[in-house]
Amino acid sequence: MPTEFEFIKRIRDQVRRRMSTSPGLVLGIGDDAAILRQESGRETLITTDLLVENVDFRLDYARPDWLGHKTLAVSLSDIAAMGGVPAFSMLTLAIPILSPDRESFWEDFFEGYFSLCERYQVTLVGGDISGTPGPLSLDSMVVGNVQSGHAVRRSGAKPGDAIYLTGSIGASATGLKLLFDGALVDTTEESLVQRALRAHLRPEPRVGYGRRVGAGSLANSMIDISDGLAQDLAHMCEESLVAAIVDYDTVPVADEAALVHQDEWQAFLFAISGGEDFELLLTADPKQEPALRESADQEGLRLTRIGEIVDAATASPASPLILRREGSLEPLPVRGFNHFGSKK
Amino acid sequence: MPTEFEFIKRIRDQVRRRMSTSPGLVLGIGDDAAILRQESGRETLITTDLLVENVDFRLDYARPDWLGHKTLAVSLSDIAAMGGVPAFSMLTLAIPILSPDRESFWEDFFEGYFSLCERYQVTLVGGDISGTPGPLSLDSMVVGNVQSGHAVRRSGAKPGDAIYLTGSIGASATGLKLLFDGALVDTTEESLVQRALRAHLRPEPRVGYGRRVGAGSLANSMIDISDGLAQDLAHMCEESLVAAIVDYDTVPVADEAALVHQDEWQAFLFAISGGEDFELLLTADPKQEPALRESADQEGLRLTRIGEIVDAATASPASPLILRREGSLEPLPVRGFNHFGSKK
Repeated sequence: MPTEFEFIKRIRDQVRRRMSTSPGLVLGIGDDAAILRQESGRETLITTDLLVENVDFRLDYARPDWLGHKTLAVSLSDIAAMGGVPAFSMLTLAIPILSPDRESFWEDFFEGYFSLCERYQVTLVGGDISGTPGPLSLDSMVVGNVQSGHAVRRSGAKPGDAIYLTGSIGASATGLKLLFDGALVDTTEESLVQRALRAHLRPEPRVGYGRRVGAGSLANSMIDISDGLAQDLAHMCEESLVAAIVDYDTVPVADEAALVHQDEWQAFLFAISGGEDFELLLTADPKQEPALRESADQEGLRLTRIGEIVDAATASPASPLILRREGSLEPLPVRGFNHFGSKK
Repeated sequence: MPTEFEFIKRIRDQVRRRMSTSPGLVLGIGDDAAILRQESGRETLITTDLLVENVDFRLDYARPDWLGHKTLAVSLSDIAAMGGVPAFSMLTLAIPILSPDRESFWEDFFEGYFSLCERYQVTLVGGDISGTPGPLSLDSMVVGNVQSGHAVRRSGAKPGDAIYLTGSIGASATGLKLLFDGALVDTTEESLVQRALRAHLRPEPRVGYGRRVGAGSLANSMIDISDGLAQDLAHMCEESLVAAIVDYDTVPVADEAALVHQDEWQAFLFAISGGEDFELLLTADPKQEPALRESADQEGLRLTRIGEIVDAATASPASPLILRREGSLEPLPVRGFNHFGSKK
């Protein structure tokens, strides 16, 4: 069993082996602070996400490399949702003082973390490590860049905008349900169950698509699906002072959701309430649709038009969301909707 | 007892009440990421520090407002040690799910946090909150600015440089020892004991001085004292590939240290090994001394010349530090010295 000191040294050595550099980096890990170059006409995006063991993940079903991937992915998704390009990251770890087999865990964790860094040319520039008498906590920060004025906010949705969604929703929530029911990851198998588990444990942030939307000023508002389509669309409506009509027939519910609900309506409700899809939800002038679709094609992503933004007065006071189903409109209640907006 | 949801809402409300804005801020809390303006000729400094309950602090002796102050102070100190100007902060909280009397705790905590923000015009721009089955964890991030090329690194110390220290050392370690021995904070009392407790629980980062040193390019290297003078000077020597001679008679040991060690030599060893002084340690061409002293005067700070940087070959392989005492030179062992450099 290595001492705490030796253990932290090993983590640092692993980090140093994978350390990269990048054009905007002046000084990375090793001093009191990292130094990043600024450029006029550019804006910095900065976000942080905390993942706590037994709250946000469980070690009994987490694959360490996938956990490393997801730790970075959730913050990359935030930068994508702003239309920016991720560039730097920081990672702060509170590590349980007594945890077995730590060495191979962290090797695998950083394999997943740095593989995703390398895919998007993200450089780890700092962080902190402490022992803790409590659970493992992972605090992920990502710093990105965007051309001044091109960041896509939640608050820009306008009546008349169409609503678009990348990919599909509900696979991650399905995976979580299956994990709770005892399903195990088997990477040799390519089944619907395994795809659901992977969607939850190793989500793919839409970095390339977000960047294209920002660079081309293609959208009026954008958010990533972390709390579920219903909640995140409601957040967007609240921030934009608008309402949204969602066309029931168009919403791309993942095939995986059928593992939990065979009934189509139940599967729909499950999919729009489940979180952590990390798809991008955006609103745009319908004239931008060809450009939005071309960008999706270039990223190999499905893009679906799922509704439209309308005047706030169109909705009921209880929810800014309206469901259009079989030609009639009904309020769409947002389960657990947080009227105080997002955490950030 | 408020629910978790109500509780997090209250914290957000407190944050919103104290929210400020600043010239470089494009968008603060409330979206997927904060947006900060960049300027050519300027560099971004970014740092993060994790404080874990029962590892870095204890709630039985922490005053919540002082804990809020210290959470920010440790990261401000890192920006000061780079010669930069702090501008933005993020704060991520892992909050024990079952903790009594949380409301007043967080009101006081944020009073301390935001008071220090306001003193230095630092704007909170983001963060995250999660419940945890473990101890309270506070992850503090600060983003600062510095004119390009003006950041003061640890690695710039040169043979011939004089070594300078702001303030004095050992009061914080004394305070920690007294707390372990059962001392209690009493803000109505102005005693050496209370000053020691305050030095540990509510340290003052040298923001103004660090900024002047960076702006004027007055120093070749700088670090803040977080691991103790001996360790931090050794880090600086390692990074700069030099050695240091410390003049025993000149080192400003805080009066408070006498509460732990009456013997002068023992008090010295205690003071150079104790951490969290958050004073600035810098090396500079002695020609800069008048400017360094003038800046210290303007900040109302004591500045002491405590030694000189020499060629690495002057020191023994065991330690880059040499103590000059009563005319003779001896190796100064660095207790717990981490040969792998700093954590960041």
